[in-house]
Amino acid sequence: MQETRVGEIEQLLEFVVEIEKLKAVLRKTRPVGLERRENSAEHSWHVCLTALMFREYANEPVDIDRVIRMLLIHDLGEIDAGDKIVYASETAEQKAAEAAGVQRVLALVPGGRGEELFALWQEFEAGETAESRYARAIDRVPPLLHNLRGGGHAWKENKIPKEKVFALNSRIGDGSRELWQVIEEQLQGAVASGLLE
Amino acid sequence: MQETRVGEIEQLLEFVVEIEKLKAVLRKTRPVGLERRENSAEHSWHVCLTALMFREYANEPVDIDRVIRMLLIHDLGEIDAGDKIVYASETAEQKAAEAAGVQRVLALVPGGRGEELFALWQEFEAGETAESRYARAIDRVPPLLHNLRGGGHAWKENKIPKEKVFALNSRIGDGSRELWQVIEEQLQGAVASGLLE
Repeated sequence: MQETRVGEIEQLLEFVVEIEKLKAVLRKTRPVGLERRENSAEHSWHVCLTALMFREYANEPVDIDRVIRMLLIHDLGEIDAGDKIVYASETAEQKAAEAAGVQRVLALVPGGRGEELFALWQEFEAGETAESRYARAIDRVPPLLHNLRGGGHAWKENKIPKEKVFALNSRIGDGSRELWQVIEEQLQGAVASGLLE
Repeated sequence: MQETRVGEIEQLLEFVVEIEKLKAVLRKTRPVGLERRENSAEHSWHVCLTALMFREYANEPVDIDRVIRMLLIHDLGEIDAGDKIVYASETAEQKAAEAAGVQRVLALVPGGRGEELFALWQEFEAGETAESRYARAIDRVPPLLHNLRGGGHAWKENKIPKEKVFALNSRIGDGSRELWQVIEEQLQGAVASGLLE
Protein backbone atom coordinates (compact mmCIF):
# COMPACT_ATOMS: atom_id res chain seq x y z
CA MET A 1 0.00 0.00 0.00
CA GLN A 2 1.22 3.52 -0.84
CA GLU A 3 2.42 5.58 2.09
CA THR A 4 -0.01 8.37 1.22
CA ARG A 5 -2.92 5.96 1.57
CA VAL A 6 -1.66 4.78 4.96
CA GLY A 7 -1.42 8.42 6.02
CA GLU A 8 -4.95 9.14 4.81
CA ILE A 9 -6.37 6.19 6.70
CA GLU A 10 -4.59 7.30 9.85
CA GLN A 11 -6.01 10.81 9.40
CA LEU A 12 -9.51 9.43 8.91
CA LEU A 13 -9.15 7.40 12.11
CA GLU A 14 -8.31 10.67 13.90
CA PHE A 15 -11.48 12.16 12.42
CA VAL A 16 -13.49 9.17 13.70
CA VAL A 17 -12.12 9.78 17.21
CA GLU A 18 -12.70 13.55 16.97
CA ILE A 19 -16.37 13.38 15.99
CA GLU A 20 -16.96 11.02 18.90
CA LYS A 21 -17.01 14.17 21.07
CA LEU A 22 -20.57 14.67 19.86
CA LYS A 23 -21.50 11.90 22.34
CA ALA A 24 -20.64 14.35 25.13
CA VAL A 25 -22.82 17.21 23.85
CA LEU A 26 -26.01 17.22 25.92
CA ARG A 27 -29.31 18.42 24.53
CA LYS A 28 -32.26 19.85 26.46
CA THR A 29 -34.73 16.95 26.27
CA ARG A 30 -34.72 13.51 27.88
CA PRO A 31 -35.43 10.45 25.72
CA VAL A 32 -38.77 8.82 26.53
CA GLY A 33 -38.28 6.59 29.56
CA LEU A 34 -34.80 7.87 30.48
CA GLU A 35 -33.85 10.23 33.30
CA ARG A 36 -30.74 11.57 31.61
CA ARG A 37 -30.56 14.16 28.86
CA GLU A 38 -30.10 13.12 25.27
CA ASN A 39 -26.76 13.62 23.53
CA SER A 40 -26.35 14.93 20.00
CA ALA A 41 -24.82 11.70 18.63
CA GLU A 42 -27.74 9.45 19.56
CA HIS A 43 -30.13 12.20 18.44
CA SER A 44 -28.40 12.17 15.05
CA TRP A 45 -28.99 8.42 14.69
CA HIS A 46 -32.61 8.84 15.75
CA VAL A 47 -33.44 11.51 13.19
CA CYS A 48 -31.76 9.54 10.36
CA LEU A 49 -34.01 6.56 10.99
CA THR A 50 -37.04 8.81 11.52
CA ALA A 51 -36.36 10.44 8.14
CA LEU A 52 -36.16 7.05 6.46
CA MET A 53 -39.50 5.96 7.93
CA PHE A 54 -41.46 9.10 6.98
CA ARG A 55 -40.05 9.57 3.49
CA GLU A 56 -43.37 8.77 1.80
CA TYR A 57 -44.95 11.68 3.62
CA ALA A 58 -42.55 14.35 2.35
CA ASN A 59 -44.31 17.18 0.49
CA GLU A 60 -41.92 16.92 -2.46
CA PRO A 61 -39.92 13.99 -3.83
CA VAL A 62 -36.66 13.82 -1.85
CA ASP A 63 -33.40 11.94 -2.32
CA ILE A 64 -33.64 10.19 1.04
CA ASP A 65 -29.96 9.20 1.03
CA ARG A 66 -28.91 12.86 0.77
CA VAL A 67 -31.33 13.61 3.62
CA ILE A 68 -29.71 10.91 5.76
CA ARG A 69 -26.19 12.19 5.03
CA MET A 70 -27.31 15.69 5.99
CA LEU A 71 -28.72 14.45 9.26
CA LEU A 72 -25.60 12.39 10.02
CA ILE A 73 -23.52 15.58 9.99
CA HIS A 74 -26.08 18.27 10.89
CA ASP A 75 -24.92 18.63 14.51
CA LEU A 76 -21.14 18.31 14.07
CA GLY A 77 -20.74 22.05 14.74
CA GLU A 78 -21.96 21.46 18.29
CA ILE A 79 -18.68 19.77 19.24
CA ASP A 80 -17.21 23.28 19.46
CA ALA A 81 -20.34 25.43 19.78
CA GLY A 82 -22.41 23.29 22.17
CA ASP A 83 -26.14 22.64 21.92
CA LYS A 84 -28.61 25.47 22.40
CA ILE A 85 -32.33 24.87 22.70
CA VAL A 86 -33.81 25.43 19.24
CA TYR A 87 -35.96 28.32 20.45
CA ALA A 88 -32.78 30.30 21.24
CA SER A 89 -30.32 28.77 18.79
CA GLU A 90 -31.17 30.48 15.57
CA THR A 91 -29.05 33.55 16.08
CA ALA A 92 -26.29 34.72 13.74
CA GLU A 93 -23.77 34.28 16.56
CA GLN A 94 -24.66 30.63 17.31
CA LYS A 95 -24.87 29.77 13.63
CA ALA A 96 -21.42 31.31 12.97
CA ALA A 97 -19.95 29.34 15.86
CA GLU A 98 -21.47 26.12 14.51
CA ALA A 99 -20.21 26.80 10.97
CA ALA A 100 -16.69 27.39 12.28
CA GLY A 101 -16.95 24.19 14.31
CA VAL A 102 -18.07 22.11 11.34
CA GLN A 103 -15.25 23.54 9.24
CA ARG A 104 -12.65 22.77 11.90
CA VAL A 105 -13.79 19.17 12.23
CA LEU A 106 -14.12 18.58 8.48
CA ALA A 107 -10.65 20.05 7.92
CA LEU A 108 -9.36 16.84 9.51
CA VAL A 109 -10.61 14.90 6.46
CA PRO A 110 -7.71 14.38 4.03
CA GLY A 111 -7.69 15.27 0.34
CA GLY A 112 -10.17 18.13 0.53
CA ARG A 113 -13.01 15.65 0.77
CA GLY A 114 -14.57 17.47 3.69
CA GLU A 115 -15.73 20.25 1.39
CA GLU A 116 -18.58 18.22 -0.05
CA LEU A 117 -19.87 17.55 3.45
CA PHE A 118 -19.56 21.21 4.44
CA ALA A 119 -21.66 22.16 1.41
CA LEU A 120 -24.25 19.63 2.56
CA TRP A 121 -24.20 21.13 6.06
CA GLN A 122 -24.74 24.60 4.58
CA GLU A 123 -27.61 23.30 2.49
CA PHE A 124 -29.23 21.87 5.63
CA GLU A 125 -28.85 25.16 7.47
CA ALA A 126 -30.26 27.23 4.60
CA GLY A 127 -33.33 25.00 4.29
CA GLU A 128 -34.00 26.03 0.71
CA THR A 129 -34.02 22.64 -1.05
CA ALA A 130 -36.54 19.81 -0.88
CA GLU A 131 -34.06 17.62 1.02
CA SER A 132 -33.13 20.27 3.56
CA ARG A 133 -36.75 21.30 4.16
CA TYR A 134 -37.62 17.66 4.86
CA ALA A 135 -34.49 17.07 6.99
CA ARG A 136 -35.20 20.18 9.09
CA ALA A 137 -38.79 19.03 9.57
CA ILE A 138 -37.68 15.61 10.80
CA ASP A 139 -35.07 17.14 13.12
CA ARG A 140 -37.93 18.64 15.15
CA VAL A 141 -39.95 15.45 15.61
CA PRO A 142 -38.13 13.45 18.32
CA PRO A 143 -37.68 16.39 20.75
CA LEU A 144 -41.41 17.14 20.45
CA LEU A 145 -42.18 13.49 21.23
CA HIS A 146 -39.86 13.73 24.26
CA ASN A 147 -41.89 16.63 25.57
CA LEU A 148 -45.28 15.19 24.61
CA ARG A 149 -44.47 11.84 26.28
CA GLY A 150 -42.39 13.34 29.08
CA GLY A 151 -44.57 15.86 30.86
CA GLY A 152 -43.44 18.76 28.68
CA HIS A 153 -40.22 18.80 30.71
CA ALA A 154 -38.02 20.88 28.39
CA TRP A 155 -40.80 23.36 27.63
CA LYS A 156 -41.31 23.91 31.35
CA GLU A 157 -37.63 23.95 32.38
CA ASN A 158 -36.83 26.49 29.66
CA LYS A 159 -40.09 28.46 29.98
CA ILE A 160 -41.06 28.06 26.32
CA PRO A 161 -44.60 29.38 25.77
CA LYS A 162 -47.00 27.50 23.50
CA GLU A 163 -46.92 30.31 20.92
CA LYS A 164 -43.20 29.71 20.36
CA VAL A 165 -43.67 25.94 20.20
CA PHE A 166 -46.31 26.22 17.50
CA ALA A 167 -44.52 28.94 15.55
CA LEU A 168 -41.11 27.29 15.37
CA ASN A 169 -42.33 23.75 14.79
CA SER A 170 -44.71 24.72 12.04
CA ARG A 171 -41.64 24.28 9.83
CA ILE A 172 -42.44 20.59 10.03
CA GLY A 173 -45.21 21.46 7.57
CA ASP A 174 -42.64 22.80 5.10
CA GLY A 175 -41.23 19.26 4.90
CA SER A 176 -44.41 17.24 5.46
CA ARG A 177 -47.81 18.85 5.75
CA GLU A 178 -49.36 15.53 6.79
CA LEU A 179 -46.87 14.88 9.57
CA TRP A 180 -47.32 18.43 10.89
CA GLN A 181 -51.10 17.98 10.86
CA VAL A 182 -50.81 14.96 13.18
CA ILE A 183 -48.21 16.55 15.44
CA GLU A 184 -50.07 19.87 15.61
CA GLU A 185 -53.08 17.98 16.86
CA GLN A 186 -50.98 16.27 19.55
CA LEU A 187 -49.61 19.66 20.59
CA GLN A 188 -53.15 21.02 20.84
CA GLY A 189 -53.90 18.05 23.09
CA ALA A 190 -50.92 19.05 25.23
CA VAL A 191 -52.34 22.56 25.54
CA ALA A 192 -55.75 21.17 26.47
CA SER A 193 -54.24 18.96 29.18
CA GLY A 194 -52.06 21.76 30.58
CA LEU A 195 -48.74 20.21 29.52
CA LEU A 196 -47.98 23.15 27.25
CA GLU A 197 -48.91 26.64 28.38
CA MET B 1 -55.98 13.74 4.74
CA GLN B 2 -57.29 10.18 4.63
CA GLU B 3 -57.86 8.54 7.99
CA THR B 4 -55.61 5.62 7.03
CA ARG B 5 -52.72 8.02 6.47
CA VAL B 6 -53.31 9.67 9.84
CA GLY B 7 -53.28 6.21 11.41
CA GLU B 8 -50.06 5.28 9.63
CA ILE B 9 -48.33 8.45 10.78
CA GLU B 10 -49.45 7.79 14.34
CA GLN B 11 -48.09 4.22 14.10
CA LEU B 12 -44.77 5.49 12.75
CA LEU B 13 -44.52 7.94 15.64
CA GLU B 14 -44.94 4.96 17.99
CA PHE B 15 -42.10 3.24 16.13
CA VAL B 16 -39.93 6.34 16.57
CA VAL B 17 -40.57 6.23 20.32
CA GLU B 18 -40.00 2.45 20.49
CA ILE B 19 -36.59 2.45 18.78
CA GLU B 20 -35.46 5.16 21.18
CA LYS B 21 -34.94 2.34 23.69
CA LEU B 22 -31.68 1.62 21.88
CA LYS B 23 -30.33 4.68 23.72
CA ALA B 24 -30.57 2.65 26.93
CA VAL B 25 -28.65 -0.39 25.64
CA LEU B 26 -25.13 -0.16 27.01
CA ARG B 27 -22.15 -1.59 25.17
CA LYS B 28 -18.86 -2.77 26.64
CA THR B 29 -16.52 0.04 25.59
CA ARG B 30 -16.24 3.66 26.68
CA PRO B 31 -16.02 6.38 24.02
CA VAL B 32 -12.61 8.07 23.93
CA GLY B 33 -12.50 10.68 26.69
CA LEU B 34 -15.72 9.60 28.44
CA GLU B 35 -16.06 7.66 31.69
CA ARG B 36 -19.42 6.13 30.83
CA ARG B 37 -20.11 3.20 28.55
CA GLU B 38 -21.29 3.77 25.02
CA ASN B 39 -24.91 3.08 24.06
CA SER B 40 -25.99 1.32 20.89
CA ALA B 41 -27.81 4.34 19.44
CA GLU B 42 -24.80 6.65 19.47
CA HIS B 43 -22.64 3.74 18.26
CA SER B 44 -25.01 3.35 15.30
CA TRP B 45 -24.55 7.00 14.34
CA HIS B 46 -20.79 6.69 14.70
CA VAL B 47 -20.45 3.68 12.40
CA CYS B 48 -22.68 5.28 9.74
CA LEU B 49 -20.41 8.29 9.49
CA THR B 50 -17.30 6.09 9.70
CA ALA B 51 -18.60 4.02 6.78
CA LEU B 52 -19.19 7.16 4.74
CA MET B 53 -15.64 8.39 5.35
CA PHE B 54 -13.86 5.13 4.47
CA ARG B 55 -15.93 4.21 1.41
CA GLU B 56 -13.02 4.72 -1.00
CA TYR B 57 -11.06 2.06 0.86
CA ALA B 58 -13.64 -0.72 0.45
CA ASN B 59 -12.24 -3.80 -1.32
CA GLU B 60 -15.19 -3.90 -3.73
CA PRO B 61 -17.45 -1.14 -5.06
CA VAL B 62 -20.25 -0.66 -2.53
CA ASP B 63 -23.56 1.17 -2.59
CA ILE B 64 -22.70 3.36 0.39
CA ASP B 65 -26.31 4.39 0.98
CA ARG B 66 -27.34 0.75 1.43
CA VAL B 67 -24.40 0.34 3.82
CA ILE B 68 -25.59 3.33 5.86
CA ARG B 69 -29.16 2.02 6.02
CA MET B 70 -27.84 -1.35 7.20
CA LEU B 71 -25.82 0.31 9.92
CA LEU B 72 -28.75 2.50 11.01
CA ILE B 73 -30.75 -0.64 11.84
CA HIS B 74 -28.04 -3.22 12.56
CA ASP B 75 -28.44 -3.09 16.35
CA LEU B 76 -32.25 -2.76 16.63
CA GLY B 77 -32.44 -6.38 17.86
CA GLU B 78 -30.56 -5.35 20.99
CA ILE B 79 -33.60 -3.48 22.34
CA ASP B 80 -34.95 -6.90 23.31
CA ALA B 81 -31.79 -9.04 23.30
CA GLY B 82 -29.31 -6.61 24.90
CA ASP B 83 -25.72 -6.07 23.84
CA LYS B 84 -23.16 -8.85 24.20
CA ILE B 85 -19.45 -8.27 23.66
CA VAL B 86 -18.69 -9.31 20.09
CA TYR B 87 -16.30 -12.04 21.23
CA ALA B 88 -19.23 -13.85 22.90
CA SER B 89 -22.15 -12.63 20.81
CA GLU B 90 -21.94 -14.76 17.72
CA THR B 91 -23.88 -17.71 19.06
CA ALA B 92 -27.02 -19.15 17.51
CA GLU B 93 -28.94 -18.28 20.68
CA GLN B 94 -27.96 -14.59 20.75
CA LYS B 95 -28.52 -14.24 17.01
CA ALA B 96 -31.99 -15.80 17.27
CA ALA B 97 -32.89 -13.44 20.11
CA GLU B 98 -31.72 -10.46 18.05
CA ALA B 99 -33.64 -11.59 14.96
CA ALA B 100 -36.82 -11.95 17.00
CA GLY B 101 -36.20 -8.50 18.49
CA VAL B 102 -35.73 -6.87 15.11
CA GLN B 103 -38.90 -8.53 13.83
CA ARG B 104 -40.93 -7.37 16.82
CA VAL B 105 -39.79 -3.78 16.43
CA LEU B 106 -40.23 -3.69 12.64
CA ALA B 107 -43.72 -5.18 12.98
CA LEU B 108 -44.70 -1.77 14.36
CA VAL B 109 -44.12 -0.28 10.89
CA PRO B 110 -47.45 -0.04 9.03
CA GLY B 111 -48.18 -1.41 5.58
CA GLY B 112 -45.68 -4.26 5.67
CA ARG B 113 -42.88 -1.80 4.98
CA GLY B 114 -40.75 -3.24 7.75
CA GLU B 115 -40.03 -6.33 5.65
CA GLU B 116 -37.56 -4.56 3.41
CA LEU B 117 -35.61 -3.42 6.46
CA PHE B 118 -35.67 -6.91 7.97
CA ALA B 119 -34.20 -8.29 4.74
CA LEU B 120 -31.47 -5.67 5.01
CA TRP B 121 -30.78 -6.68 8.62
CA GLN B 122 -30.52 -10.34 7.54
CA GLU B 123 -28.14 -9.36 4.75
CA PHE B 124 -25.94 -7.54 7.29
CA GLU B 125 -25.91 -10.55 9.59
CA ALA B 126 -25.05 -13.00 6.80
CA GLY B 127 -22.14 -10.87 5.60
CA GLU B 128 -22.19 -12.38 2.12
CA THR B 129 -22.58 -9.28 -0.05
CA ALA B 130 -20.11 -6.47 -0.76
CA GLU B 131 -22.20 -4.02 1.28
CA SER B 132 -22.56 -6.28 4.29
CA ARG B 133 -18.87 -7.27 4.30
CA TYR B 134 -17.95 -3.60 4.31
CA ALA B 135 -20.58 -2.68 6.93
CA ARG B 136 -19.43 -5.49 9.24
CA ALA B 137 -15.83 -4.33 8.84
CA ILE B 138 -16.72 -0.75 9.80
CA ASP B 139 -18.79 -1.93 12.77
CA ARG B 140 -15.56 -3.18 14.38
CA VAL B 141 -13.53 0.02 13.99
CA PRO B 142 -14.81 2.38 16.72
CA PRO B 143 -14.73 -0.20 19.54
CA LEU B 144 -11.11 -1.03 18.63
CA LEU B 145 -10.25 2.68 18.74
CA HIS B 146 -11.93 2.88 22.17
CA ASN B 147 -9.62 0.16 23.43
CA LEU B 148 -6.52 1.41 21.62
CA ARG B 149 -7.04 4.98 22.95
CA GLY B 150 -8.50 3.88 26.28
CA GLY B 151 -5.95 1.60 27.91
CA GLY B 152 -7.45 -1.56 26.42
CA HIS B 153 -10.21 -1.29 29.05
CA ALA B 154 -12.80 -3.62 27.51
CA TRP B 155 -10.19 -6.23 26.56
CA LYS B 156 -8.95 -6.28 30.16
CA GLU B 157 -12.34 -6.13 31.88
CA ASN B 158 -13.64 -8.99 29.75
CA LYS B 159 -10.37 -10.95 29.68
CA ILE B 160 -10.14 -11.06 25.88
CA PRO B 161 -6.75 -12.49 24.80
CA LYS B 162 -4.88 -10.98 21.88
CA GLU B 163 -5.43 -14.10 19.76
CA LYS B 164 -9.20 -13.54 19.87
CA VAL B 165 -8.84 -9.83 19.13
CA PHE B 166 -6.77 -10.50 16.02
CA ALA B 167 -8.88 -13.45 14.85
CA LEU B 168 -12.28 -11.77 15.12
CA ASN B 169 -11.25 -8.36 13.84
CA SER B 170 -9.45 -9.73 10.82
CA ARG B 171 -12.91 -9.54 9.24
CA ILE B 172 -12.13 -5.86 8.76
CA GLY B 173 -9.89 -7.11 5.93
CA ASP B 174 -12.90 -8.72 4.24
CA GLY B 175 -14.35 -5.22 3.85
CA SER B 176 -11.17 -3.19 3.48
CA ARG B 177 -7.74 -4.79 3.31
CA GLU B 178 -6.05 -1.39 3.56
CA LEU B 179 -7.96 -0.33 6.66
CA TRP B 180 -7.20 -3.67 8.33
CA GLN B 181 -3.52 -3.30 7.51
CA VAL B 182 -3.37 0.02 9.39
CA ILE B 183 -5.45 -1.22 12.33
CA GLU B 184 -3.57 -4.50 12.57
CA GLU B 185 -0.38 -2.51 12.93
CA GLN B 186 -1.93 -0.43 15.72
CA LEU B 187 -3.02 -3.64 17.45
CA GLN B 188 0.52 -4.99 17.20
CA GLY B 189 1.66 -1.76 18.81
CA ALA B 190 -0.81 -2.41 21.63
CA VAL B 191 0.69 -5.88 22.12
CA ALA B 192 4.20 -4.41 22.15
CA SER B 193 3.22 -1.85 24.78
CA GLY B 194 1.42 -4.42 26.94
CA LEU B 195 -2.07 -2.95 26.39
CA LEU B 196 -3.23 -6.16 24.72
CA GLU B 197 -2.04 -9.48 26.12
